[in-house]
Amino acid sequence: MADPTVATGGVGVSVGAARGGVGSHVRGGDTPLEVSKRGSAQRFQPGSPRVLVAGATGFAGALAAHLLWRHPRFELAAITGRSDVGSRLDELYPRYRVPLRVQELDLDELDGFDAAVVAYPHAAAAPTVGALLDRGTRVIDLSADFRLSELPTYEHWYGTHPRPDLLERAVYGLTELHREQIAAAAIVANPGCYPTASLLALAPLARAGLLADVVVDAKQGISGAGRTASLDTTHLSYTAENIIPYKVAAHRHTPEIEEQLSLLGADLRVQFQAHLVPLDQGEMASCYVTPTRTVSAEELSELFAAAYDDEPFVEVIDAPPGVREVRDTNFCRLFAAADAHTGKLLVFSAIDNLWKGTSSQAVQNLNLMFGLPETEGLL
Amino acid sequence: MADPTVATGGVGVSVGAARGGVGSHVRGGDTPLEVSKRGSAQRFQPGSPRVLVAGATGFAGALAAHLLWRHPRFELAAITGRSDVGSRLDELYPRYRVPLRVQELDLDELDGFDAAVVAYPHAAAAPTVGALLDRGTRVIDLSADFRLSELPTYEHWYGTHPRPDLLERAVYGLTELHREQIAAAAIVANPGCYPTASLLALAPLARAGLLADVVVDAKQGISGAGRTASLDTTHLSYTAENIIPYKVAAHRHTPEIEEQLSLLGADLRVQFQAHLVPLDQGEMASCYVTPTRTVSAEELSELFAAAYDDEPFVEVIDAPPGVREVRDTNFCRLFAAADAHTGKLLVFSAIDNLWKGTSSQAVQNLNLMFGLPETEGLL
Amino acid sequence: MADPTVATGGVGVSVGAARGGVGSHVRGGDTPLEVSKRGSAQRFQPGSPRVLVAGATGFAGALAAHLLWRHPRFELAAITGRSDVGSRLDELYPRYRVPLRVQELDLDELDGFDAAVVAYPHAAAAPTVGALLDRGTRVIDLSADFRLSELPTYEHWYGTHPRPDLLERAVYGLTELHREQIAAAAIVANPGCYPTASLLALAPLARAGLLADVVVDAKQGISGAGRTASLDTTHLSYTAENIIPYKVAAHRHTPEIEEQLSLLGADLRVQFQAHLVPLDQGEMASCYVTPTRTVSAEELSELFAAAYDDEPFVEVIDAPPGVREVRDTNFCRLFAAADAHTGKLLVFSAIDNLWKGTSSQAVQNLNLMFGLPETEGLL
Amino acid sequence: MADPTVATGGVGVSVGAARGGVGSHVRGGDTPLEVSKRGSAQRFQPGSPRVLVAGATGFAGALAAHLLWRHPRFELAAITGRSDVGSRLDELYPRYRVPLRVQELDLDELDGFDAAVVAYPHAAAAPTVGALLDRGTRVIDLSADFRLSELPTYEHWYGTHPRPDLLERAVYGLTELHREQIAAAAIVANPGCYPTASLLALAPLARAGLLADVVVDAKQGISGAGRTASLDTTHLSYTAENIIPYKVAAHRHTPEIEEQLSLLGADLRVQFQAHLVPLDQGEMASCYVTPTRTVSAEELSELFAAAYDDEPFVEVIDAPPGVREVRDTNFCRLFAAADAHTGKLLVFSAIDNLWKGTSSQAVQNLNLMFGLPETEGLL
Repeated sequence: MADPTVATGGVGVSVGAARGGVGSHVRGGDTPLEVSKRGSAQRFQPGSPRVLVAGATGFAGALAAHLLWRHPRFELAAITGRSDVGSRLDELYPRYRVPLRVQELDLDELDGFDAAVVAYPHAAAAPTVGALLDRGTRVIDLSADFRLSELPTYEHWYGTHPRPDLLERAVYGLTELHREQIAAAAIVANPGCYPTASLLALAPLARAGLLADVVVDAKQGISGAGRTASLDTTHLSYTAENIIPYKVAAHRHTPEIEEQLSLLGADLRVQFQAHLVPLDQGEMASCYVTPTRTVSAEELSELFAAAYDDEPFVEVIDAPPGVREVRDTNFCRLFAAADAHTGKLLVFSAIDNLWKGTSSQAVQNLNLMFGLPETEGLL
Repeated sequence: MADPTVATGGVGVSVGAARGGVGSHVRGGDTPLEVSKRGSAQRFQPGSPRVLVAGATGFAGALAAHLLWRHPRFELAAITGRSDVGSRLDELYPRYRVPLRVQELDLDELDGFDAAVVAYPHAAAAPTVGALLDRGTRVIDLSADFRLSELPTYEHWYGTHPRPDLLERAVYGLTELHREQIAAAAIVANPGCYPTASLLALAPLARAGLLADVVVDAKQGISGAGRTASLDTTHLSYTAENIIPYKVAAHRHTPEIEEQLSLLGADLRVQFQAHLVPLDQGEMASCYVTPTRTVSAEELSELFAAAYDDEPFVEVIDAPPGVREVRDTNFCRLFAAADAHTGKLLVFSAIDNLWKGTSSQAVQNLNLMFGLPETEGLL
Repeated sequence: MADPTVATGGVGVSVGAARGGVGSHVRGGDTPLEVSKRGSAQRFQPGSPRVLVAGATGFAGALAAHLLWRHPRFELAAITGRSDVGSRLDELYPRYRVPLRVQELDLDELDGFDAAVVAYPHAAAAPTVGALLDRGTRVIDLSADFRLSELPTYEHWYGTHPRPDLLERAVYGLTELHREQIAAAAIVANPGCYPTASLLALAPLARAGLLADVVVDAKQGISGAGRTASLDTTHLSYTAENIIPYKVAAHRHTPEIEEQLSLLGADLRVQFQAHLVPLDQGEMASCYVTPTRTVSAEELSELFAAAYDDEPFVEVIDAPPGVREVRDTNFCRLFAAADAHTGKLLVFSAIDNLWKGTSSQAVQNLNLMFGLPETEGLL
Repeated sequence: MADPTVATGGVGVSVGAARGGVGSHVRGGDTPLEVSKRGSAQRFQPGSPRVLVAGATGFAGALAAHLLWRHPRFELAAITGRSDVGSRLDELYPRYRVPLRVQELDLDELDGFDAAVVAYPHAAAAPTVGALLDRGTRVIDLSADFRLSELPTYEHWYGTHPRPDLLERAVYGLTELHREQIAAAAIVANPGCYPTASLLALAPLARAGLLADVVVDAKQGISGAGRTASLDTTHLSYTAENIIPYKVAAHRHTPEIEEQLSLLGADLRVQFQAHLVPLDQGEMASCYVTPTRTVSAEELSELFAAAYDDEPFVEVIDAPPGVREVRDTNFCRLFAAADAHTGKLLVFSAIDNLWKGTSSQAVQNLNLMFGLPETEGLL
């Protein structure tokens, strides 16, 4: 089915330049923007898979739409939202320059998608994932609904699961850990940003049986709190000039990390703690590992080299990374050190929480699912 | 009437230290804080005027409460709010360390105030101001309701005025311009922060008949957008790394500036433009004046010296001020320069929008109204 | 001539993963980074022009190197620097991911460049520009050395000109104003970022003979202060939470703006004022124009539409732009409004000072000089 | 001896208002500021101890001077510096509003101090501390020179100690741990900011014999990197939008923490790790403790209540603290939680690194040393 939004949004006609507007707000929501200069056409190759982004008005969905819009081998066929229907995405997110309009998700009207990225809140996602699967659409789900294989664990943290029957069709979408299953999956449960950073840091040690005790102290920028404005977690007057630990001794990401470590052979309870720090995008997981035996710097170096030398998006470096080094990229930067004083192993893992932590990892997985080079559209 | 809040809030008993809480939010609103160490007692002198802060849960009211709580010559007798009733102010604003509870404003219950600071939105303030006046309470109103002497101008910008009968009892509260009338006033209409910065910069030139044309380009931190979380104006992910002009060609503060300049003898239309920049507190008004005649650097210097040498809170300096130099103070820093290339006069005016721009200027005015030294509690 | 740096830098071998380093600084300057994953090869087409970036260790040169490294139609053949010789650029600027080493600029050793971007300070640039021209290399000069056609004006602001003989071979590189001359130029004098933002805002009005008086109030992020660490202009503890006017009544960019406006038919003195605000990249020029006659909102709209409808990188919008909307892009966003109250015209111009303000405009000009689509490598 | 600086600096005469200056820098270092309005006189009581601040041009010394200038019971008798001699401190730090001039430290000229705060770098401090002691001046040393009682430990981290003979006369200046010895001390070795935050969090557990294993993940604002501008650690373009671990497995503060814990009965090696995050002032120590036995939430709560209920500057709260809650104060806010999932104890400790972490703790100690109420001048 043809997508009328593309036709409408893509004409490239200037719809009126500067008017002497007297808008009384910072940005009037009703002021039509001129069609973006670069928005006149996508440049995907003919025959490219058609992709839907459902929930495109939140931070994660909007970035996924941006990445797919500029991707040479996917067609961004439609974007839908639970709010802002009828708005152009480049009004809501000017810098992403996607000139499509947000539609309601009516799968009787909108159809014919080869894949979908679903960016809904937990529990809201599963029914939509199911409906898309029924129509033959493969899904990357950005929510937590399919990340945990154990139903009771899910229900402990999130309540009743709307579609437990689908759990067995889902693959955990941390690309570097489950590349082959992702390529064939019907549902890819994209990891949370904290588990992404934490697991990439811990996986080489888990596989080697070295994890006796683990503390992960994670710090994240404010974009991690999402688009909904909130006094405590997003207002600049609260969050700037602040450092805020949150969800103390109660973070939903802990079981996700523990389940994946268990699959790598490490059964242990992980101390995970999140903090908000005053930047927009960026996440650092500082991991403190008590090893099961003494590990030399050389062995540590070799473990990480063996794990990641062939990975296109994991950079093992020789100095502590800053999150700015990976901003707006799909890269994860790792630095591992053995502390001779304490005998502990330290691993620092830097990602962009919205990119490798969420939306660009979704595209990395889409590349795999459709047989494209894993780095396509991401460098 | 005795204020039970002070007794309750002021006991100084530790109400329970760290519990192994599993709060799922950044800061649980229901977690009682230990009574602040410094909150056990105010230290005002016996017989000090009793002051109410109405609307203490917003940025302006909370800061006014903070300044009055630590003031040696006022008793902060009660704080009220239209939200968060029952909360302790030091839960809402920990750094202000005011241990009083927010009450509902019921003037049949709460009474006996010598003065009140009313921090309500425009139009909501006037009826409360009237009710307080009826009970013999002198009022500092932080809203726009009594700033404009011309009713039609008010109604053009704000709609129907709830109490136009009170307009003639109000004095415009820019201390440096109306000191004597403020001292005797029943209602002090505290200026907006933009007019405060702009008028202190322009007054010496207005009085000297030098204003032929005026452009004021103002920049303000995000606290100016208020406590209500909003995507466009307060979310860190929108406002950090941004510079945003707003209310273009339509700013409500223009008539307030023009009316005051007119009182100083300068009848002209002012081009005023506001911008949001990514900091919390701070405001810079950059004023570009086309003079009615050539003005030398020496004359300019003398004009500002004459105007402000005796002012305790206006500092005329010899280099451009940064807003950080006046942060958390009642000071205004001014720098004036004559541009030989264009013949224009430039004046830069730096204040803290929440302090001299709002709440500490209210206390400066309260000092005047009760015969105290103008700097009391503000240095 | 083959460039040995590419061979060395591009091998793509992991040069050692995490060592248990005890570096005592935030980032040891001597810690070799692993070769970047994406750095193994440039992907330019065979026969692409070979480009040198001289001065690649500063903010402007490093970004130019980044943009050329990922450009499909230019070969980044070498990067040189006056400091950090021998360092890899992706050590100095990890997020730019350019794995070349910084070399000394010895034109007897390094040669065979079709073009060069020279990112040197004022006065240091001109001799190098001359030496490159002598070897048949076309040059984009990012300094001020060739921006002013009047030698006395240059010497008033910058001192003796090292190569006044070359002035007549230079074209002012604001693409939208001098597209045809740039295409054929030997030297392109890339504009300053302030003139870029200001002139794009003012050009349609200048051409229409509408400029009677102009005030430009410009605000810029800290990257505009350059890479050299300085207490007053770059230290976060001074510049965060601050707004700082600088170079009051004395900005070197004024003559550059005035000369270009004069070429468009507007001979007048411009009041230009710069401010530092606390972000990294981004620049807003707020322009206040007293017109020579009354201008309606419709006429204003038509003037800007006529000027920019066909421009690929200028977006005229219907609401005030935020600089974040153009961050990391070559776009300029403009909003123009007629203020009925004052009769003035307001134009807001948002660019990224490092991109359209400097380095991506250099690439835009290089595209023109070598017959490529103007947007190549920039969308 | 009369202090001529006070006379000179304190006249309170306006030394010339705005000149049409054409300074080419953001703030000309040579532009004399008008005497600050509030700087005309200190208001200490007659007979107050006379205090010197040596090294007043750095962040720590300047804040100490500010706190002493406004202190009602100390006379700030002189400030000296190793740079900026002759400058007024309110030119260097306008917001501190101390109108004294920086002098050279010549103890034959300057004398008669009852106490001194020495804010010099490590190793530079000890000789000056010795010279002051010889003249009968009691000293608060902000450097590391006297923090470690074990000379070999000092020499491992800092090199040769200039005055090891004085070590036995020094008391470690964490007020809450050594109050009585501080009151009588000749030298108070003021703690580092990281040990202050860490030890206040860990002390109740150390005393109770509960520390089996400790990880401290600390985050600090950029003011912690000091006043010297540096690309990697203070430039806004590097540090904003960044999170940077530094001194991995090699932090000098570890032995200081371990030595103090040992005095409390806990002999163990502590994993301490520091990070820079993008704010100015503020520090959070997130402490992860493996206890020697199971500890209930109730016991944890009682331990912290017992330790701190009577402490005027330690607030034990029931939710995670943000560092903004203690900004510009001498308070430490603590939140302790027992994690039932892992069995670990978590303690979050928030301070202002420049205040309780450095300069206001110095004043707290001075209050003790001179028999004043501990909170004098600090609330």
